[in-house]
Amino acid sequence: MIPIGHVETPWATVADCPRNGRKPEHPPLCHAVIRPEFIAGLASLEGFSHLILVTLLDEAPEPRLVFIPPFDSHPRGVFATRAPWRPNPIGVTVVALEGVEGPGRLAIRYMDCRNGTPILDIKPYLRTVDSVQDSRMGWLEPNVKAEG
Amino acid sequence: MIPIGHVETPWATVADCPRNGRKPEHPPLCHAVIRPEFIAGLASLEGFSHLILVTLLDEAPEPRLVFIPPFDSHPRGVFATRAPWRPNPIGVTVVALEGVEGPGRLAIRYMDCRNGTPILDIKPYLRTVDSVQDSRMGWLEPNVKAEG
Repeated sequence: MIPIGHVETPWATVADCPRNGRKPEHPPLCHAVIRPEFIAGLASLEGFSHLILVTLLDEAPEPRLVFIPPFDSHPRGVFATRAPWRPNPIGVTVVALEGVEGPGRLAIRYMDCRNGTPILDIKPYLRTVDSVQDSRMGWLEPNVKAEG
Repeated sequence: MIPIGHVETPWATVADCPRNGRKPEHPPLCHAVIRPEFIAGLASLEGFSHLILVTLLDEAPEPRLVFIPPFDSHPRGVFATRAPWRPNPIGVTVVALEGVEGPGRLAIRYMDCRNGTPILDIKPYLRTVDSVQDSRMGWLEPNVKAEG
C-alpha cells in the first residue's frame, strides 16, 4: 500500500476532527492533493459530484475490538462502528467534489480526518450501487433521531 | 494490512465476477467469514441492514492509470472508474446484511468479487453520511440511462 496523495483539512490532530464531517454547521472546504505520478489517473473525474476517499488512518490508536462508544452505554464491536482503531485502519469517506483547482488538486467537502492523512484510493461515488437511503442503522438509530 | 477474513461467492475467478453485484437478476447469497480472533469485533452488527465491505483485490492486474473502459470510447483515469487495477487494489462494496448465521459467518447480498477475496474491514453503512441519492455520475451517466 502506497499513498497516492494526502488530504488538507483544518484539523491538525485526530482530537480536533469532527465525529461526522457533515455535521459542522459550515463544513469547511478541504483538498485532496495527489502525487504527480498518479495525476493521470484523475482524468474524467471532474464530472462526478461525489467521490469515495479511501484513507489510511495512520495516527489511529491500537486496535480495540470491543468498546463503549461515546453517547452510548453498551459495549459494541468495532466493525459495528466507524471508530478509527480498527485492525486495518482504513477510512472510507463520501465527499462532495467541489472542483478541480489544478493538476492533482481537488476541492472537496465533508472530509472528517486530520490534516495530512494519506490517501490510498479515490473512487467515483455511484448512486446505483453506493446509495441505500432506507437502510437501518442498528444501535446508532436512536442517535440519529436524537441528533435530528 | 492483515485480512480479517474472506468472502465466499459463486465466482471462482475475477473473469467470472459480475461488473455490478446489483445487476444479476437474482443476486446470489454470499458470505463473509471472519477469522476467530476478530469475531468479537462483530458485536452489535446484526441491527444494520447494510454494510461496507473493504476488500483486498489481490488478483487484480498491474495498475493502469488510464484506459478505455468497456462500453466506452474515451480513455478514462482509473480514479474515475471502479476497475480493480488500481495503485492500491482496495475494493469498497455496499452489501445487504441478510443475517448472522453463526459466529463470524455473515450472510450478505450484492457482493461482486471472486470467491476467497480477503476482507480488510467491515463498516456499518450509515445513510446519514454514505447515501447521496442525487449524485451525478460523470462519464458513467449515459451508461446508467442505457442500462435503465
